[in-house]
Amino acid sequence: MEERLKQQLEFILEMDKSKEVTRQTYLADGSRKENDAEHSWHLALMCMLLSEYANEKIDVLRTMEMVLIHDVIEIDAGDTYAYDPAGNVTKAEREQKAADRIFALLPEDQKQHMRGLWDEFERADTPEARFANTLDKVQPLLLNDATGGRSWEEHGVKAEQVYRRNEKTGDGSRVLWEYAKELIAKNEREGKLK
Amino acid sequence: MEERLKQQLEFILEMDKSKEVTRQTYLADGSRKENDAEHSWHLALMCMLLSEYANEKIDVLRTMEMVLIHDVIEIDAGDTYAYDPAGNVTKAEREQKAADRIFALLPEDQKQHMRGLWDEFERADTPEARFANTLDKVQPLLLNDATGGRSWEEHGVKAEQVYRRNEKTGDGSRVLWEYAKELIAKNEREGKLK
Repeated sequence: MEERLKQQLEFILEMDKSKEVTRQTYLADGSRKENDAEHSWHLALMCMLLSEYANEKIDVLRTMEMVLIHDVIEIDAGDTYAYDPAGNVTKAEREQKAADRIFALLPEDQKQHMRGLWDEFERADTPEARFANTLDKVQPLLLNDATGGRSWEEHGVKAEQVYRRNEKTGDGSRVLWEYAKELIAKNEREGKLK
Repeated sequence: MEERLKQQLEFILEMDKSKEVTRQTYLADGSRKENDAEHSWHLALMCMLLSEYANEKIDVLRTMEMVLIHDVIEIDAGDTYAYDPAGNVTKAEREQKAADRIFALLPEDQKQHMRGLWDEFERADTPEARFANTLDKVQPLLLNDATGGRSWEEHGVKAEQVYRRNEKTGDGSRVLWEYAKELIAKNEREGKLK
């Protein structure tokens, strides 16, 4: 078999590990926490259905590719919970190292493409990356709200922390951020967020 | 909130149930069976990396959308195992009914778009749908091979059944089908497939 296809299929099998990286967010029915692969699928579906709400015109395919791969580095780096200050100190370094190993499994052209998408997502300096980041923030808000704030309650998260974490969520979509703000305020009123 | 956005977000929350539809295929490390959301994410990633092997030129975004939503009807209809003859007798009817309910949750234009994608995938009569179907067949072959044919062994699946099920897998990509055939032959030699 051609070396190129071999590398691609090995990468695809390695990616299977994303199904075992657990996040802190519960499924909408609260039965268990979701994993990175499920989360990324959910974001891609949101991208498909909600791109009309992007503040700027976006390339939907590029944005979809970005959300599909934005968390694969967590295969090595692990999921860092949004409200874990210690974890967030070392996050960037762990993730850069992971990106170096993981994308290098691919043929050179696809390595460049994937790494480019991941770097762009991290920098959030294009319309696509801004919208992808907005989806990445709004999806756990939807799930947290659906479970009655379970993951927030477990970690004693405060509303002000959620607002701080979402400082840039409106940059990708004002409409979705307006909706998300209503959810946050509702959970604050109900005491799910301190 | 606008009715349109409300419908879209309700659909997106309903889709969360795809994370709880279990398939018969094990993860590559054999730790548990995968679910529809993870499977669909994996196919989208494959679409992104392997579209160069499509027999005909494909619209990658359209194909990616197709694989992302091809199994959402299983929220109602359940996963029908490939080698379950009784289940496959009632599959089409259960899935049509599920599609009627599920896509109707969306605003009319998106309902038409999603239903169109799903019908196209089922008919497999376009280059995009042929390639999407090829990915849908090749991905479980990769995982079955990685687990030493575990799901085949559990169900006593015969090589001839796998070949019959894959009669059209080459229609989307001869290259991927050639590779998949090698995997099937290897598992036959090793006695993982009867």
